[in-house]
Amino acid sequence: MKAYLIILLTALSWAQAQSPTTNAVARQNSGPIYSPEVGEDHRVTFRLRAPEAREVKVSGEWGATESLTKSEQGVWTGTVGPLKPELYGYNFVVDGLRIADPGNPKLKPMRSPVTSILDIPGKTPLLHDFRDVPHGSVNTHYYYNKELESWRRVQVYTPPGYHKSKQRYPVLYLFHGSGDNDATWTELGRANIILDNLLAENKAMPMIVVMPDGHPIAGRITGVPGPEMIQRNVEAFANDVLTGVMPLVEKEYRVINKRQSRAVAGLSMGGGQSLHLGLNHPELFNYVGGFSSYVVSPGKNEFAIFNTKEKPELIWTACGKDDRLIENARELSTRLKEKGIEHKLVETEGNHSWPVWRKYLAEFAPMLFQKRRGY
Amino acid sequence: MKAYLIILLTALSWAQAQSPTTNAVARQNSGPIYSPEVGEDHRVTFRLRAPEAREVKVSGEWGATESLTKSEQGVWTGTVGPLKPELYGYNFVVDGLRIADPGNPKLKPMRSPVTSILDIPGKTPLLHDFRDVPHGSVNTHYYYNKELESWRRVQVYTPPGYHKSKQRYPVLYLFHGSGDNDATWTELGRANIILDNLLAENKAMPMIVVMPDGHPIAGRITGVPGPEMIQRNVEAFANDVLTGVMPLVEKEYRVINKRQSRAVAGLSMGGGQSLHLGLNHPELFNYVGGFSSYVVSPGKNEFAIFNTKEKPELIWTACGKDDRLIENARELSTRLKEKGIEHKLVETEGNHSWPVWRKYLAEFAPMLFQKRRGY
Repeated sequence: MKAYLIILLTALSWAQAQSPTTNAVARQNSGPIYSPEVGEDHRVTFRLRAPEAREVKVSGEWGATESLTKSEQGVWTGTVGPLKPELYGYNFVVDGLRIADPGNPKLKPMRSPVTSILDIPGKTPLLHDFRDVPHGSVNTHYYYNKELESWRRVQVYTPPGYHKSKQRYPVLYLFHGSGDNDATWTELGRANIILDNLLAENKAMPMIVVMPDGHPIAGRITGVPGPEMIQRNVEAFANDVLTGVMPLVEKEYRVINKRQSRAVAGLSMGGGQSLHLGLNHPELFNYVGGFSSYVVSPGKNEFAIFNTKEKPELIWTACGKDDRLIENARELSTRLKEKGIEHKLVETEGNHSWPVWRKYLAEFAPMLFQKRRGY
Repeated sequence: MKAYLIILLTALSWAQAQSPTTNAVARQNSGPIYSPEVGEDHRVTFRLRAPEAREVKVSGEWGATESLTKSEQGVWTGTVGPLKPELYGYNFVVDGLRIADPGNPKLKPMRSPVTSILDIPGKTPLLHDFRDVPHGSVNTHYYYNKELESWRRVQVYTPPGYHKSKQRYPVLYLFHGSGDNDATWTELGRANIILDNLLAENKAMPMIVVMPDGHPIAGRITGVPGPEMIQRNVEAFANDVLTGVMPLVEKEYRVINKRQSRAVAGLSMGGGQSLHLGLNHPELFNYVGGFSSYVVSPGKNEFAIFNTKEKPELIWTACGKDDRLIENARELSTRLKEKGIEHKLVETEGNHSWPVWRKYLAEFAPMLFQKRRGY
C-alpha cells in the first residue's frame, strides 16, 4: 500500500511542490514505510521514519511497550507479538511525545487524536470482523443546537435493507466515552459491523443505532470543579439528545415512536449519560445499558424511576473485574436494590477497554426489543 | 474544550489507569492544551506539549512555516496570522517529524495521516461554511470487491429531505486525490456543506454525491514503474466503480438510472480517474469534470468518445495557474480539440490545493442536470 502511495507521490511531487506542506512531506518521506505490517504468525512490525529522534517506542492495547531500533536510513523498526486477533489502539512515543502512526490510515476518532488502529482479524471471524453478510450503513448528520449556538454531529446506523424497505424500526441510542467522539463507536467499536453480524445470525432484531457526540458543553465552561462539570455536561447532553438528536432521528428515519422500541446505552462517561437519561425517562426508554459506567455519586442519585409506576423492562449494567469503575457499578447496583429496582450487574473479565465494550454491545443488543432473555 | 476534557480525564484517570496507553497519556498531559486557538482578529495560536523536543514548527496551507518557542512547562507556542477565513490543513514539525496536532480533534482523512484542520469561518459565510439551512447527510457503506478480495468503503451524500421523500435523484460520482481517502471530500472538501449551501440558494439541482476510495490496488502490487502503476490503478478503480460502487448506489438509493442523470468528476489523481471513466463511458455519464487533474500521457489518450456518436454534454476541466499540472490540462485540451471534442478548460488563480477544489465543485455542480449554463 505504501509503496504504491510513494510511487504516486513521487510522480506527482513536481505538481505539488508549490505547497509548503506537501513539499516538506515529500522531502522527508523518500521511499515506502510499511506500518503496521501483520505477519502470517500475527507478529506485527511497526516502522517510523524519524532520523532525528533519540528514542522511539510503540505502546499498545495488547498491554506492552516496545522500544524500536533505528536503521542507518533513520527508520525505526520493532516487532511485537504474536498478538491474538483483536482490534487494538496503539501509539508511537517519540522522545516522550505520543503520536499516531503516520504510516497507518486507520485512526481512532478522539478528542486528542494520538491513537492508530491495528486490525488483526480472526481466522474464525471475531464478533467485529467483516463477514460476507448483508451490511447496513452509517449516516453522518449535522444539526444546530440553538441553545449552545454550535453545530453538532451524530452518526446513525441503519440495518441492511433499510434504504429500500418501508418498515419502521426500533432505536438504540449509544453513547461514547470521555476521550472519544461520535465516530468512535463505529470506527473502533465497530458497532455497525457487530450489528450486521448479529443480524446475519438472527441473534438480534433489526434496529437503528444513534451515536451522538457526548461533549455538548466542552470548551464552553472552564473553572468549574470536576464532578460539577461532569454533571453539567451530563445534563446538557441529555437536553441535546432530547431536543436535538431525537427529533432529528424521528423526522429523518422510519422509527417506531414508542418507549417499547427505544433503548439507551453507553460506555464509561457515556454509561453515566445513558443511565441518567434512561433512568430519568422511563416514558421514553424501555431498555437501559451501562457499560463500565462512570456515574457521579452513584449511591446518592435520585432517578425519576424511583417514583414512577412505569419502569424500564431491562436495566443492564456490566463492568470488568480489573476496571476500577467496578466499585462505581456496585454502588449504583446497591442504590437500585435499596429502591427496589430490578436490574442486572454483570461482572466480567477485562478492564476499561474496547475489547470489553464490543463484547458488551454484542451481549446487550440481542436482549432488546423482544421478550426478555436471560434477565 | 480542552479544559473540560482534561478535567474529565483527570476525574476518570484513576479509572483508566490500568490501560498502559491511557495511563501514559495522562502522565504526560497534565493541564489543558488549547490548540489551535483562533482569536477575534484571526490570529491563530498553536500549542504542543513536548518537553523533550529540540525544535517545533507549525507549517500550514496559508503558505508559511513558523517556529514555536518552549515554555518552562515544556509547552511550545507560536502565533500566526491574521489569516483570512478559510479551511486550512496544517502540521507540526517536531525535530523534523511531521505530525498532526494532538490538541485538535479535526483531522484530514489521509493515507498517511499527519495533517490537522484549522477552520476559520467567514463573517460572511464562505461557500463551505455551515449555515442555518436544511442539511443533507453522508452515509458510509462497506462493500466487498471479490476480484480484489478486499473490503472497500464509499461515502454517499444525500440532499436535505432525501430520507422522507419518494423522489428519484441524479448522481455525481466524485473522486479524491492521491494522498486522500473516501472521507476527504467531505471532511476537508466539505462537499456536503457546499451542496447544502448551493441548494439553499437554488443554485444547483438536488443530487446524490458518491465518493468512493480511489486506491483499490494500493499495497497489492509493488515493483511496477510509476506511470504504469498509476494507469493500472486507474483501470482497477474504473472497474471497482462500475462493478462495485454503481450497483450498490443504484440498489440502495432512489437514483435516476440514465446517462443524462449521471456526472463524474475528481481532483488531481481523481481527475485522471474521472476523465478516464467519463470519456470512455459516454453511455453512462453525461457530465465530466477534471479538477487540477493528473492524466497519464494526456496528449496520447484514445478515449472511447473519439469514436462514439454520443458525447458528454459537458466536459469541464479547470486548473490553477500556479499548479504545475496546468501543462497536463493544456495537453489534454489540445488532444480533445484535435479530435473535435467540445470541452472547456478554465485556468484560474491558485495552486494544487483544497481552496481551489472547493471553488471548482461550487462552480461545477450548478452546471449539472439542467440546461447548459455558461458553457
